[in-house]
Amino acid sequence: MATPLRLGIAGLGTVGGALARLVEAKRDALEKRAQRRIEIVAVSARDRMRERGFSTEGMAWHDDPVSLASHAEIDAYVELVGGSEGAALESVKAALNRGIPVITANKALLAHHGVQLAKLAAKKNSTILFEAAVAGGIPVIKTMREALAGNEVARVYGILNGTCNYILTRMEKEGLTFAECLAEAQRLGYAEADPTFDVGGFDAAHKLAILTSLAFGCEIDLDSIFIEGISNVAIEDIEAAAELGYRIKLLAVAQRTDTGIEQRVHPTMIPTKSALAQVDGVTNAVAIDSDLLGSILLAGPGAGGNATASAVLSDVMDLAIGSVTPTLGVAPANLTPYKRARMRAHEGGYYIRLSVLDRVGAFASIARRMAENQISLESIVQRRRDSDGAESDVAPVVLITHETTEAAVRKALDLVSKDGHLKGEPHMIRIEDLSRD
Amino acid sequence: MATPLRLGIAGLGTVGGALARLVEAKRDALEKRAQRRIEIVAVSARDRMRERGFSTEGMAWHDDPVSLASHAEIDAYVELVGGSEGAALESVKAALNRGIPVITANKALLAHHGVQLAKLAAKKNSTILFEAAVAGGIPVIKTMREALAGNEVARVYGILNGTCNYILTRMEKEGLTFAECLAEAQRLGYAEADPTFDVGGFDAAHKLAILTSLAFGCEIDLDSIFIEGISNVAIEDIEAAAELGYRIKLLAVAQRTDTGIEQRVHPTMIPTKSALAQVDGVTNAVAIDSDLLGSILLAGPGAGGNATASAVLSDVMDLAIGSVTPTLGVAPANLTPYKRARMRAHEGGYYIRLSVLDRVGAFASIARRMAENQISLESIVQRRRDSDGAESDVAPVVLITHETTEAAVRKALDLVSKDGHLKGEPHMIRIEDLSRD
Repeated sequence: MATPLRLGIAGLGTVGGALARLVEAKRDALEKRAQRRIEIVAVSARDRMRERGFSTEGMAWHDDPVSLASHAEIDAYVELVGGSEGAALESVKAALNRGIPVITANKALLAHHGVQLAKLAAKKNSTILFEAAVAGGIPVIKTMREALAGNEVARVYGILNGTCNYILTRMEKEGLTFAECLAEAQRLGYAEADPTFDVGGFDAAHKLAILTSLAFGCEIDLDSIFIEGISNVAIEDIEAAAELGYRIKLLAVAQRTDTGIEQRVHPTMIPTKSALAQVDGVTNAVAIDSDLLGSILLAGPGAGGNATASAVLSDVMDLAIGSVTPTLGVAPANLTPYKRARMRAHEGGYYIRLSVLDRVGAFASIARRMAENQISLESIVQRRRDSDGAESDVAPVVLITHETTEAAVRKALDLVSKDGHLKGEPHMIRIEDLSRD
Repeated sequence: MATPLRLGIAGLGTVGGALARLVEAKRDALEKRAQRRIEIVAVSARDRMRERGFSTEGMAWHDDPVSLASHAEIDAYVELVGGSEGAALESVKAALNRGIPVITANKALLAHHGVQLAKLAAKKNSTILFEAAVAGGIPVIKTMREALAGNEVARVYGILNGTCNYILTRMEKEGLTFAECLAEAQRLGYAEADPTFDVGGFDAAHKLAILTSLAFGCEIDLDSIFIEGISNVAIEDIEAAAELGYRIKLLAVAQRTDTGIEQRVHPTMIPTKSALAQVDGVTNAVAIDSDLLGSILLAGPGAGGNATASAVLSDVMDLAIGSVTPTLGVAPANLTPYKRARMRAHEGGYYIRLSVLDRVGAFASIARRMAENQISLESIVQRRRDSDGAESDVAPVVLITHETTEAAVRKALDLVSKDGHLKGEPHMIRIEDLSRD
């Protein structure tokens, strides 16, 4: 039997607490599998006295993660503090500088400093494991870093934020508004008091930035991501999507194009019959298109203490067994610089919802503006007015375009607005048919 | 840069040929990733002279896989010969006896001899990698062996045979008979000239036997699997399923029960809205229910030269990087004996199709036989007769039962048959709601 793997865990919140309880509860099973014991020898958290459902007796206590990361008796440092700067960043650097491996669930840290940290890890002959940082319990990091090793990835996309997917699912199933579903998500603990990070698409963007690097062997570039959240999605959109054979999901997409790599996060209409469209509630899903495998799809729990702790535990077990994949799949020296695609935004069909003032010639004028911008329309439908009849001078109109560019759509809508036919702003949702390009 | 990883490949058919071409075409990318070269230094195949789209120049040629496995200059032996006995078995043993790792895509070999070979590997401090043996390019072995390391699996199930799924999908989409779709599958190369191994459910059973061991840490037991193929699935069944909100898939299921482990392969009605039901054509999918993760689903190409070679390549890269997971996830000494569940067959709802002779009291008699066996009926529907009207004395009747046992259904149908109300044999398909028990 080999020597034990001694862990230091910083952060004993939902995930850290679950991890500590699991290491205790599954001690024998883990030892059998790894052929060595897994031991938590040191911890750090904000409040030493809090009741956590497990005993920290026998574990060295550190008030500060950086001090924990420097603890002489640990073989690996588990960072579950969170945040892209401060204690998380400094403690991870401290551990890597010592040459011990780091396990983290911290997507913000990696999205902002992943390349720098990967370089530090490589320099010190160590590595960072981060299965829990993207899509919770779904083994997407392992799949991209290891299983796809021989593949050239063309596109990676998916549902990466459980809060948004929960809200969109409830809106669709129960006809509730965004605001109502958000409040419910907050009540159930699926959304934070300040929901911006989730519903604004930023959480999904952090995760996408990491996947993009693994997919294309390039450096991480969070700032290049086009981000649009779900707060403007209306029930009318969801209903119209259903009639057209689509469901609306917050999709994160990264794909290789002729001019570079495109990364975007936005509400997207996807075919109801696609497997991705069936992914409901807080579940996440990631699809990967590559040269050898074609398309594969992974779906599962995107969050939750046990699911995320399970992902951390899989990293722990990899370390225990001696697996040493480079942080970002390849040696950092082999990462290519990120090259942003010329077109930053979606090419494809568009769903456009307009509130058109009831005037002679409005329809014709809108259609002409589309034609002027080479946008071909698949359908143009005047939808039923709201039953309350309060806005009888306004007709909701839905346009579906054939494949076009975002620039053309934006330009045409800008002109339509200026023509004075609309009440309020035009609203558009990108359509993705999900077939391989 | 480390020394090269030198491979000996036995079998240069579809998968072996694709692998050799990929190792050549992706030489630089693989070297960058592994930080060492991957070299094919020796090969074995039936016909030395055949044109394969790559050069075997510089590779040592062996007429016999056993001789190849003994080649002094190889670091790993890749077995792509196929078959559970003979050259495949002997060559794998020869390689393991030397202490070099084995990579194989051979599900039959593992289903029959996996435990014995895992023991040999462990004794010699080596391992067997077999990502390609189950579900082609889907990283299900990696997921179960590594990503689920901390989880206790309750159930693993999925669509493991692309030929059957292709046939069922075409029957549904185009209203063709089983025989017509099988012929088409054979024409397209999706089915063998002798299709029994695929359509009889045996191929799926081999794969399930392996997954069962990984899921439950038990020995492999192919013989305990209840197997029923798809040749009796009729278009009427598929149509009736659609009306009821189900699709028919050949499902392979292994689950832990109070009395042991249950393994079965059979046509199954699953809810149309489930993600698994959206898995069409030659695509495979595996779902895993476990204590920490809840449910995860993996879907992707189940066969094909490149997809399977990609899985082999992922094993090659794991070896190159130094990953050394035990063959069956845990040390063979820690595998538990397989304990068969007392109930070997499905508990749940049943779809039953009967051809009932048009006699007074037949319906009542059938309903009574069901009640006598504590089978509660959700619906009983007399379906429209065949348009040709040739059998106007026979009414097709479909029964849907609430949850019951296979024993009860079999007993009731036996009695109904003996009562003389039926023309031909009763036909039943198990219904699986896929929610966790």
